[in-house]
Amino acid sequence: MTATTSNIHIALVHFPVYNKIGDIVTSSVTTLDVHDISRIARTYGIGTFYVVTPLETQQVLVERMMKHWREGYGATYNPTRKEAMLSTRVKNVLADVVADITERSGQTPKIIIPDAKSFPQSRDYPTIREELQKEGQYLIVFGTGWGLEHGMVRRADFVLAPIDGLNGYNHLPVRAAIAIILDRLLARQA
Amino acid sequence: MTATTSNIHIALVHFPVYNKIGDIVTSSVTTLDVHDISRIARTYGIGTFYVVTPLETQQVLVERMMKHWREGYGATYNPTRKEAMLSTRVKNVLADVVADITERSGQTPKIIIPDAKSFPQSRDYPTIREELQKEGQYLIVFGTGWGLEHGMVRRADFVLAPIDGLNGYNHLPVRAAIAIILDRLLARQA
Repeated sequence: MTATTSNIHIALVHFPVYNKIGDIVTSSVTTLDVHDISRIARTYGIGTFYVVTPLETQQVLVERMMKHWREGYGATYNPTRKEAMLSTRVKNVLADVVADITERSGQTPKIIIPDAKSFPQSRDYPTIREELQKEGQYLIVFGTGWGLEHGMVRRADFVLAPIDGLNGYNHLPVRAAIAIILDRLLARQA
Repeated sequence: MTATTSNIHIALVHFPVYNKIGDIVTSSVTTLDVHDISRIARTYGIGTFYVVTPLETQQVLVERMMKHWREGYGATYNPTRKEAMLSTRVKNVLADVVADITERSGQTPKIIIPDAKSFPQSRDYPTIREELQKEGQYLIVFGTGWGLEHGMVRRADFVLAPIDGLNGYNHLPVRAAIAIILDRLLARQA
């Protein structure tokens, strides 16, 4: 039923993330993020786009929205949106995403996380681009709010540099950052 | 008063554009586009981001929103959004954008438009990237809806390939396409 058989997946994580003052919180799901990122994921042939939130009310909200576009009036009104959402799934926590990929593919995914800090497993874009040509499953994890809890980043297989502004301004919406990162890692070379 | 002195500008045009069935229409301004694209423009050091619509009520809406974030409560609540919006302006039609750039810089901008069709002045990304290193003013024009009226594209100095999906799916939100295109044309090379 999925629209692609790609071995590269992405997750948008709403817990555990930091808020403005450094507390670990659960951020709210933005339905617009689900729309935009579904389209971006489809454009770059992503296997599954996982929306990760432990809040049941938010899970219900996202599921209801996806049902509208996949099966309800939205499916005939806007078929390209339906197509985009065929590979979007909602999960409780990142461990459930890893379990889902492992169960469906028989392989544990390697985890890649963009983060502003430098880690021993930090790599540049050309290196990760090459890594992604290999066989096996990959999961690129994006945090919302003020970024993913550091422990999660420390346990990643690879850490990727964030998108740096040309003049010190680093406040891209997460949906824009995801578009740029997937383009750098997956677009056909000119 | 602008946050940068860059000679590269962008415009988001709401008229004349095509709708789903090929009529030439005025599309509605999405305030979210103004927010996202202001941040993206600021990230890549764009001179001015022009929101182009001939509808006065929509111009008032955008101006009021920008005033809130630049001077109102929003300016203290979210200073990075204020900073992003310092270089955003509203104009009636594309000719007014060209006049504004010419008046402020003393030079007529060269116009670059991404379009799915091939034109005599079509160029690839590396070529336009090199072009943008030159002196002089440049204006990259993005259409909303189902794309800019063809006559506008035909009169552009350069036409740029659109962002192609890896599998025939070409339905990126305009804000995602702008993020990717500016990254390809202006990001520091790895």
